[in-house]
Amino acid sequence: MRIELVQQVLEELNGSSPDVEASALISTDGLMIASALPHGVDEDRVGAMSAALLSLGERAARELSRGTLERVLLQGERGYVIMIASGEEAVLTVMARQNAKLGLLFLDIKRAAESLAGLI
Amino acid sequence: MRIELVQQVLEELNGSSPDVEASALISTDGLMIASALPHGVDEDRVGAMSAALLSLGERAARELSRGTLERVLLQGERGYVIMIASGEEAVLTVMARQNAKLGLLFLDIKRAAESLAGLI
Repeated sequence: MRIELVQQVLEELNGSSPDVEASALISTDGLMIASALPHGVDEDRVGAMSAALLSLGERAARELSRGTLERVLLQGERGYVIMIASGEEAVLTVMARQNAKLGLLFLDIKRAAESLAGLI
Repeated sequence: MRIELVQQVLEELNGSSPDVEASALISTDGLMIASALPHGVDEDRVGAMSAALLSLGERAARELSRGTLERVLLQGERGYVIMIASGEEAVLTVMARQNAKLGLLFLDIKRAAESLAGLI
């Protein structure tokens, strides 16, 4: 089934590095498609924050002449939230630890987003 | 005067690479402190979008257990918006072209944010 393949890509992404803590695929209108979240991370909260960031990020990118939004990164003192478009209709949200190496992480996330775009 | 020193740091940052298009220092409550923006970039728009992103970014970082927000990056198909804390009371917002090298850019921005934090 398609959703199982989506789930498998998310779990592989989480397993790609110990620095990846959680990942979720969310429709551009803010609904959760699938998630691989550790115990204690609330799916609704991830969905709601992703949708809000996506919406504001798109507006800011447009208003500041950056064109169509492709990626959002938040860095906090305890880690990262990274969002990347997965095709036209979904967004991949990933949470990673603060000592993650961004270059490798971006590559893994981009590949996962491309695989997921082909599945949905 | 202090504001002239702030202005000078922003202009030096813009001059550090042809990929840096604009920079502005904004108070954490969303008011413009100083800006070095090219013709055609609206100061109020940069201030408003920075304040909105900062506010939502802080909330998302907190809700998703990322701790205090340190950096926000938006990547659009036509370039980047990067925001970084400059001390406790201000945020440095930088707009850069789409082919900018992020590693070097982050270093330059971090150094400028540290200088600015010492001035305000």
